[in-house]
Amino acid sequence: MIHHINPAAASLTVPGIRVFANKVAEFEDGINLTIGQPDFPTPENVKESGISAIRENRTGYSHNAGLPALRKSVSNFFRDAYRCCYDPDSEIVITNGASEALDSVLRTIMVEGDEVILPSPSYSGYEPLIRLNGGTPVHLDTTESGFIPDPDALSALINDNTKAVLFNYPSNPTGVSLPYGRMEKLADMLAEKDIFIISDEIYSENTFMNKHISFGTFENIHNRLFIIHGLSKSHAMTGWRIGYVLGPKTVMEHVLKVHLNNSICASLPSQYAAIEALDHTRGFPHEMNTQYVERRDYTYRRLENMGLTSKKPAGAFYIFPDISATGMDDVSFTTKLLEEEHVAVVPGSTFSKNDHSRIRISYASSLDNLANGMDRMEHFIARQKP
Amino acid sequence: MIHHINPAAASLTVPGIRVFANKVAEFEDGINLTIGQPDFPTPENVKESGISAIRENRTGYSHNAGLPALRKSVSNFFRDAYRCCYDPDSEIVITNGASEALDSVLRTIMVEGDEVILPSPSYSGYEPLIRLNGGTPVHLDTTESGFIPDPDALSALINDNTKAVLFNYPSNPTGVSLPYGRMEKLADMLAEKDIFIISDEIYSENTFMNKHISFGTFENIHNRLFIIHGLSKSHAMTGWRIGYVLGPKTVMEHVLKVHLNNSICASLPSQYAAIEALDHTRGFPHEMNTQYVERRDYTYRRLENMGLTSKKPAGAFYIFPDISATGMDDVSFTTKLLEEEHVAVVPGSTFSKNDHSRIRISYASSLDNLANGMDRMEHFIARQKP
Repeated sequence: MIHHINPAAASLTVPGIRVFANKVAEFEDGINLTIGQPDFPTPENVKESGISAIRENRTGYSHNAGLPALRKSVSNFFRDAYRCCYDPDSEIVITNGASEALDSVLRTIMVEGDEVILPSPSYSGYEPLIRLNGGTPVHLDTTESGFIPDPDALSALINDNTKAVLFNYPSNPTGVSLPYGRMEKLADMLAEKDIFIISDEIYSENTFMNKHISFGTFENIHNRLFIIHGLSKSHAMTGWRIGYVLGPKTVMEHVLKVHLNNSICASLPSQYAAIEALDHTRGFPHEMNTQYVERRDYTYRRLENMGLTSKKPAGAFYIFPDISATGMDDVSFTTKLLEEEHVAVVPGSTFSKNDHSRIRISYASSLDNLANGMDRMEHFIARQKP
Repeated sequence: MIHHINPAAASLTVPGIRVFANKVAEFEDGINLTIGQPDFPTPENVKESGISAIRENRTGYSHNAGLPALRKSVSNFFRDAYRCCYDPDSEIVITNGASEALDSVLRTIMVEGDEVILPSPSYSGYEPLIRLNGGTPVHLDTTESGFIPDPDALSALINDNTKAVLFNYPSNPTGVSLPYGRMEKLADMLAEKDIFIISDEIYSENTFMNKHISFGTFENIHNRLFIIHGLSKSHAMTGWRIGYVLGPKTVMEHVLKVHLNNSICASLPSQYAAIEALDHTRGFPHEMNTQYVERRDYTYRRLENMGLTSKKPAGAFYIFPDISATGMDDVSFTTKLLEEEHVAVVPGSTFSKNDHSRIRISYASSLDNLANGMDRMEHFIARQKP
């Protein structure tokens, strides 16, 4: 029996991003442009709120769904920021980061053999999580449509085995946001289908131009929609591990049971810090965004000058340039760049299996780092030419 | 499709303990003796360590397996306290509490239809977790053998579908520890079987007389043993959510992948606090134990005087008296006691389905509370007599 462990667990692969991140750490002069977390500290008042909770011994178990006050903060935030209504008592569960939120949802709704549609390129953590939960990811390639899913193409992939579609806008790795009109068309199409919609909006507050629009705005899909969210990206709180999921009461009741059996509740100092972030620190993401925009514009321009074109990101903190002009595929490019110039970026095929023409660069890194990284990349590309 | 959610998730029940805990909170004069967490604050130096991590912005993601320094602390602690050797680089994963440690192990090793043997009475969280992972719990009733599993009786339950046996000593709810001789016999028997051994030793530091003995001591089962542990009970850190699992490298590699896909890593302020707890605060559990022993002795004596006999607990902070003498079953007893005297305890059948002759009392509560609770229970019992 001990040789028959869960094949879905055994066959999981270690994330490709980590391979490059670990390797670049070996070089003293290495520049790591793979990083998926803000390079800003958590705001001081948010930190103080966590510290007060520790000092005052507010560190016992909370309600399994999270502190009622925190659920109220989440509900208020979604109402004010995105005009979405969620009941803090029955439609919100606080989790150990957005990952656990997504895992708890998938674990609740999925059965062996289910398909989950992923508009791709998509975050490399989704596919293993779908497989771990007994399902098969089905990729909707959006490369030819500006990284924006086409409703008809999506509709064509839905069959009797489809359990859900998983959106992630602003998108990791492309930085694309969906225009309202496109979201409305997607919602209208999905309203007619018998599947769940999961919208990972973790980068919502890192939207640079217009306001973020949540799928929670569309009433016609509300009873089958889960929104995955959290504080990691908006408030530079990755290691605090606070995520949450909003969804319809009838299913959230089961999501809560899955969550509590998995891990009882999220860390209490972090839950108290999260209340402060959502209630009194809503302007913080915009302060970060000012710097992200400056870095995005700089990186975009440098890449253009090297002949690497990108769609200019509207959110998140990644850029996803086309490297075809270099004559290299993504794996050769990233491997050689790392070896020769000690700069780590991620091959595009990590996010989109069959596309070897792109790389992902994170600009959650100082302008100095980015300038240094771009200089080295420029030398590297220049050297490849005969 | 949306009506076909995961039946293993949908059929999970809300823990019975919570029903009583929630109900007693409604009474202003309620006394809650159901609580599964120490009523002591986290030690000051441990709190300060978490606070320093926050102040110094050590709050980004850690290695998915946990901070290398924390894994080293865990390894050293198990070596010094229990003479067990685990490699911090490949045999230890830090999790969101012991619950997530156990869930990650079960999720890694289990396939649909597996059986997991539970010596019972057992913690009420095990059965739903086994079912959530597609398995069936098989109970080994230990009521007639002093709550200590008999190797032959256990052996008789092992068949081709058995994936693991799950031990929990010191035991919740009985407070029983296993004598070394019995553990050795169990290990010898299990060494010949093709199953995993999971030992939840979360109450190890709350052992009152002799030193706790870990199943990690037995070399003949080492390559199939997982030890579940954490800081919640030993250092009054329930809401900090730090657990960990120790196990054989070949399987831990997969446990790590399950853990990282579930939740990336445990909370960073909590991880830093845990290092301080394990490196410099090892005497703290013994300070708590002095008070637990006083409360145990008091509660034991009061119960004896009411005609409710118990096996005197050797560890943890629960006592599990037989209430047969009152002529009531456990559910009537606990329900009436709550309604009439506003004292909450847990029916024994929560831990052992077919035994309605016991209740669980937590003495992780002040002597004043316990005295008040015992007084009320005494009045209650006296009133039942004709």
